[in-house]
Amino acid sequence: MDKAVVAVDLGGTKIYTALAGADGRVLAEVLVPTRPWEGVDAVIGRIVGTVDQVLERAGKGGRPAALGIGCPGPLDAASGLVHHAPNLDWHDVPLKDLLEKRLGIPVAVDNDANLAALGEYVYGAGRGEKDMVYITVSTGIGGGLILDGRLYHGAGFGAGEIGHMTIDPGGPRCNCGNSGCLEAMASGTAMAREARLLIESGRGRAILEAAGGDVCAVTAREVARAAAGGDDEARQIIINAGRALGTGVANVINLLNPALVVLGGGAMQVGPLIWETMEEEISRRALAAARRRVRLVPAELGPRSGLMGAVALALQKSGGIFRSGMV
Amino acid sequence: MDKAVVAVDLGGTKIYTALAGADGRVLAEVLVPTRPWEGVDAVIGRIVGTVDQVLERAGKGGRPAALGIGCPGPLDAASGLVHHAPNLDWHDVPLKDLLEKRLGIPVAVDNDANLAALGEYVYGAGRGEKDMVYITVSTGIGGGLILDGRLYHGAGFGAGEIGHMTIDPGGPRCNCGNSGCLEAMASGTAMAREARLLIESGRGRAILEAAGGDVCAVTAREVARAAAGGDDEARQIIINAGRALGTGVANVINLLNPALVVLGGGAMQVGPLIWETMEEEISRRALAAARRRVRLVPAELGPRSGLMGAVALALQKSGGIFRSGMV
Repeated sequence: MDKAVVAVDLGGTKIYTALAGADGRVLAEVLVPTRPWEGVDAVIGRIVGTVDQVLERAGKGGRPAALGIGCPGPLDAASGLVHHAPNLDWHDVPLKDLLEKRLGIPVAVDNDANLAALGEYVYGAGRGEKDMVYITVSTGIGGGLILDGRLYHGAGFGAGEIGHMTIDPGGPRCNCGNSGCLEAMASGTAMAREARLLIESGRGRAILEAAGGDVCAVTAREVARAAAGGDDEARQIIINAGRALGTGVANVINLLNPALVVLGGGAMQVGPLIWETMEEEISRRALAAARRRVRLVPAELGPRSGLMGAVALALQKSGGIFRSGMV
Repeated sequence: MDKAVVAVDLGGTKIYTALAGADGRVLAEVLVPTRPWEGVDAVIGRIVGTVDQVLERAGKGGRPAALGIGCPGPLDAASGLVHHAPNLDWHDVPLKDLLEKRLGIPVAVDNDANLAALGEYVYGAGRGEKDMVYITVSTGIGGGLILDGRLYHGAGFGAGEIGHMTIDPGGPRCNCGNSGCLEAMASGTAMAREARLLIESGRGRAILEAAGGDVCAVTAREVARAAAGGDDEARQIIINAGRALGTGVANVINLLNPALVVLGGGAMQVGPLIWETMEEEISRRALAAARRRVRLVPAELGPRSGLMGAVALALQKSGGIFRSGMV
């Protein structure tokens, strides 16, 4: 088979696998549940199963040239060892070795945020730029850095933790133990927390109504719905998140002077208000020259960004050239 | 002449020029005043004069292979155009072209903070690491980034502006127009400002005494002296600066996962308290894995870091190999 590769986006709930040609075009794809509680071997077996399925669906025989896989981290992208993946309940799993043994083809591993960045860079909103920051605003906030045309990993494969940048030293507690992290102030989880606090203090009527009267059902989506209906309390929650996000993005712009910041993730869908507020805050806090140089754009690949990054990684591993200048 | 190069560190008050061998060893150096008020041509002439002087002092004939020069920015390191250097009162000065015309040798230009980073990387505290962040804490706060073994410039040659990262959105006003920038909270200027505010409010006796009773003579040095004498108010000013610095450095550690952070600049000399407080705050705010991976070390080259970076730049320009892996 001429240089087709397999890409896998491994998450806590689902395994998303694709077969792609040397041009990056997806030939077949399949989605199966992860079921991490069945153990590492079962998950590995299920990944191997999806490889057979995409080959079959595409009507291809033979072996693919390589496999690229994105996995929640932290992990060592060189050895392919997953140090700790809470969603999978994995500790020190040699993902690369296990898959290479089962499949007999070269395997490359990277973390999911890095591959989402790579996916947008090669096939999405980042095409044509060589200094790009990718930020995903979802239940958490993560990111990946393309610097001088290459995915930048840092000394311990931990670069890109934009969500744990301190935005306000006196801000709310974060899951990481720190306080005032961007993630604790602008993620979907943070917006939901603020809405619930509001409701518990006897306010936030419109948000509670949007959640059918069940405070436990309040997520960023209900905040978005109330805000779309003109509710000021919901709008203020989104404005606060947008401001924190803008402060964080301005910090990254001042530090890295990127040509492009690509923003994705479900929590960016709460409405245009979060984007507008973010832009205002960036204009306030970024240095003028760096602000002029940078474009802020939404991600283009949606839930497929990580998968397409795994395609790019697999093509790189197979020796295919998927973009001039990439290493 | 076999591959000797000239390095220049151009500042608002002095021109510091060295002749160095292909191994980076300095053969001769000279320091002359800049006198920017005499105009661009006069300053260029004075730089050219220092080149003749170092050649003469070293007893060398012929022409050096290249010249590297560090200049306050912002500037375009590719074309060698200095957009704006307030200390020199320069606007759009084609520094590279002007020097090449006068000297007839290849000239490379970069900003002073980047060259200080490069100097520490090649000849100082950064030897042996390929992901290094350099931070200088002085009247302002600047920095330079060595990422994957290369000086990282960003899309508009503006990367490394660590001093303008927002540390506290409600913090004091910064010269850049923003509020709560690291520079406005942890620079020598910031410490002096806090001390003067204290004195103007009728406190800060020990600091005022250290300044001979003249509030206008208060700088970070007088704060340091009072703190060394055990004064609690002075100590608190240094502690606050150290905390802000630690927050900023933690942000950079989380974002870039460097192996090394090198800290230099005069304001780091206010005593061990600033370093200790910074380390505490970093341990509080940096992600555990990234914190474990990074070493925090003082700069080794002091006021020569920029000059030595210019040596490295000149050797690079001349085609000399000054460190394996450098590009």
